[in-house]
Amino acid sequence: MAKQGEKSKKDDISKLKGLSVKKAENFSEWYSEIVQKAELADLRYNVKGFLVFQPWSVLCMEKMYYYLEKALQQKNHKPYWYPTLIPEKNLLKESEHIAGFVPEVFWVTNAGKKKLDEKLALRPTSETAFYQMFGIWIRSYKDLPFKTYQRAQVFRYETKATRPFLRSREFHWIEAHCAHATLKHAESQVKEDMQTTKEVLHDIFGLPFIFFERPAWDKFPGADRTFAADVLNPDGRVVQQPSTHLLSQKFSKAFNVKFIDKDGKEKLPFITCYGPAVSRIMASVIIVHGDDKGLRFPWEIAPRQIAIVPISNDPKLIKKAGELKNKIGDLASVEIDLTDRFPGEKFNYWEMKGVPIRIDLGLKEIKQKKLTVFRRDINKKETIPESKLINYIKKVAKESSQNLIKQADKLFESRIKDTKNSEEIKLALEQGAIARCNFCSVEKDGEKCAEVIEKQIGATVRGTKLEKEKASGKCAICNKKAKQVVYIARQY
Amino acid sequence: MAKQGEKSKKDDISKLKGLSVKKAENFSEWYSEIVQKAELADLRYNVKGFLVFQPWSVLCMEKMYYYLEKALQQKNHKPYWYPTLIPEKNLLKESEHIAGFVPEVFWVTNAGKKKLDEKLALRPTSETAFYQMFGIWIRSYKDLPFKTYQRAQVFRYETKATRPFLRSREFHWIEAHCAHATLKHAESQVKEDMQTTKEVLHDIFGLPFIFFERPAWDKFPGADRTFAADVLNPDGRVVQQPSTHLLSQKFSKAFNVKFIDKDGKEKLPFITCYGPAVSRIMASVIIVHGDDKGLRFPWEIAPRQIAIVPISNDPKLIKKAGELKNKIGDLASVEIDLTDRFPGEKFNYWEMKGVPIRIDLGLKEIKQKKLTVFRRDINKKETIPESKLINYIKKVAKESSQNLIKQADKLFESRIKDTKNSEEIKLALEQGAIARCNFCSVEKDGEKCAEVIEKQIGATVRGTKLEKEKASGKCAICNKKAKQVVYIARQY
Repeated sequence: MAKQGEKSKKDDISKLKGLSVKKAENFSEWYSEIVQKAELADLRYNVKGFLVFQPWSVLCMEKMYYYLEKALQQKNHKPYWYPTLIPEKNLLKESEHIAGFVPEVFWVTNAGKKKLDEKLALRPTSETAFYQMFGIWIRSYKDLPFKTYQRAQVFRYETKATRPFLRSREFHWIEAHCAHATLKHAESQVKEDMQTTKEVLHDIFGLPFIFFERPAWDKFPGADRTFAADVLNPDGRVVQQPSTHLLSQKFSKAFNVKFIDKDGKEKLPFITCYGPAVSRIMASVIIVHGDDKGLRFPWEIAPRQIAIVPISNDPKLIKKAGELKNKIGDLASVEIDLTDRFPGEKFNYWEMKGVPIRIDLGLKEIKQKKLTVFRRDINKKETIPESKLINYIKKVAKESSQNLIKQADKLFESRIKDTKNSEEIKLALEQGAIARCNFCSVEKDGEKCAEVIEKQIGATVRGTKLEKEKASGKCAICNKKAKQVVYIARQY
Repeated sequence: MAKQGEKSKKDDISKLKGLSVKKAENFSEWYSEIVQKAELADLRYNVKGFLVFQPWSVLCMEKMYYYLEKALQQKNHKPYWYPTLIPEKNLLKESEHIAGFVPEVFWVTNAGKKKLDEKLALRPTSETAFYQMFGIWIRSYKDLPFKTYQRAQVFRYETKATRPFLRSREFHWIEAHCAHATLKHAESQVKEDMQTTKEVLHDIFGLPFIFFERPAWDKFPGADRTFAADVLNPDGRVVQQPSTHLLSQKFSKAFNVKFIDKDGKEKLPFITCYGPAVSRIMASVIIVHGDDKGLRFPWEIAPRQIAIVPISNDPKLIKKAGELKNKIGDLASVEIDLTDRFPGEKFNYWEMKGVPIRIDLGLKEIKQKKLTVFRRDINKKETIPESKLINYIKKVAKESSQNLIKQADKLFESRIKDTKNSEEIKLALEQGAIARCNFCSVEKDGEKCAEVIEKQIGATVRGTKLEKEKASGKCAICNKKAKQVVYIARQY
């Protein structure tokens, strides 16, 4: 037995035991455990609703930033860093916006021993910072489209219960803000944002989602139209991932953003904004890909791609592990497990951590010039000749991401259910699905039916698909003629 | 003449005219102009002391983050993201620290319509956030060294005049925090931090500096010993770049960070912290490398490495520019200048922006299969065969950074002057130099002489070099026996 004093954080038995519940049986507890046991975030920071993101999630989220920023820059967005603080007068300029956000704003009122002349908001989102500068910078149609973004944290005094990654009072995101000469250009931007979401969140991060246009009563404060991607959790609740908003001319008017068009006339540009929240995307990566052994990651965003596990501390094994790491070089990020845990504990640890490839190294392997390799995407051990290692890694890099994406897509598709009335909607939701049904109207006059759904079923109308689906027959709630096909789900 | 309405931001004549003053003649004005004309930061954001960082500086600072984080991770620092907010009670735990920082703290007191139970600080630095968690995480000698860092913004209510990049109320930095089992390990960490600074700030960013141990009266609030790198500006003022602090056991005591050592005894770890401020490093990159035409960048951190300038909008030129960009591929970041400015304006623009290589493309060049290339490191045009472009880029990539580093080192070394008394110190400083002299003592009892220097010469004792220089003779100020050789300079 180890002495009490020798018990280090790394030896903490609770962390090595694996998950005590199954994802399918108790999703909520499974999620809490995986966040803690895979050391993704520590909730013991002493400000309510705030937490410390630990290395394993930060490494993954930095990779998310890399792919998101690369995609935005390729589409000619330029990066900016705006101040974290926004003066109250800016927030007050657009009335819907202020009504939507002010209940959630953290206010800086003092500095040193002085009371400030004006309250400063910790940005809850940055429309009112960006567009003030747009008003200074944009003059002519030649300046348009004006495509920008920033990587930043935003702050919201959430009154609902917070959950790590899913809902915190400070979160990490990217916000892209663009000004366009015409409504048509702005609409194209919204489509481009949805395409970016598909290219990055689905094709790289492996997250299946539907991009909905939100109903009239569920728009971003200040937006003409709001579009948002919903990802589905095993408990049947959806998580809103990136949203993109057609703000049109409300903010250009409020912030006096004007340009002289080709025809010599002064006009208001059409503004759009797009916001992928990296720390919330992390939640979906955990939830969508994780299993009963722990995390799983698509290759590109794995915090580490390969773990080499010497099954004892025999110097020959340690030496060999180093040689393999050197051989792999820049092809993959590699960590060698040098802890003094038992082999079984090490195996569990790296399965919990979700490295795509684990190499288990014993003296037998060295002698036979073979490697025992564990693939996390299919949870299988394989034996390969050491000489084939590089090609094997290249193959698994591709295959494992594709496998995770396919598994996730298949599950997601199987969980969209067609429904005809309240009873069927309720049943579908109880089975953890998203319900699709005919609906009277996503304009103002349909809000009553949405309220019925909220009260009686505890779910919300997520909206219509972009590629409009043809409604036929009657609204599943009020029996009036249906104008749209909508999707209904529970949310957090 | 263009119509008023057609005047776009990009056409703004003031931006294309180049700098109106010479760096050597009016450094302060040169700096203000270059920040504005190269579009690095906009000071018109409407909160005092805060500014908007524009794409050209953000692209460079993102590269700085890349190299700094890579170096830290290679040295086994793990990345964290801590909350931006620190509760007042944490700040109050270490008395020297609170005394040093509280006059500069921005306070969040309200959220939504509610007054918070406890004031929350916008972090001025994060010792009091990190070490609270160290107290939870660290248990055994096996957990040590515990090496962490975060990329973050910090906030200080500066009362001195702010200057873009040099001193703002919000700045972008990295802070690394480590806990060690022994003082010796902590001292090694301080040396490692200095080595990291050399490897990244000097060898990649091209900044010459001296790492000083600060005198007893100029330590970081709460530190036992403080070490900091000073970079010299043309006006003879020094800018403090990364500092590293031996905090020893004061904070571990204040935050109850304890570990059980190999001998079974409970001990306080020795803590160190290190802080390279990326937005301030940007100031030194602008200042050290910039010339009378504008910015210059070492290859690795240039926002764009190559600009291709078609000298007219002939479709053949545009097509060729695209082909060259494809050919260069991932070897360098390339921007094609598609504006309708005159060639001369385009040339000035890219010299102001500091791209290391500019390719001027005319029909003559296409016909002759040659390229006219402008190298910004030596401000020279060269003609090369098109077929040699890739090798040429590889060559210039290496040479241009080396040239900038050499130029900077040479200038820096020529500006350290040996001095014997107040008169000579004053003279050296007036010539824009750092004065080296014998000094009575950098311990408490030397503070009087430091005050004399401050009052009579308007300069500060920066400290002693790490590789201790042998003092001989008498203190340049008080004529008592000198114990150290110190360096004296003006600061901002």
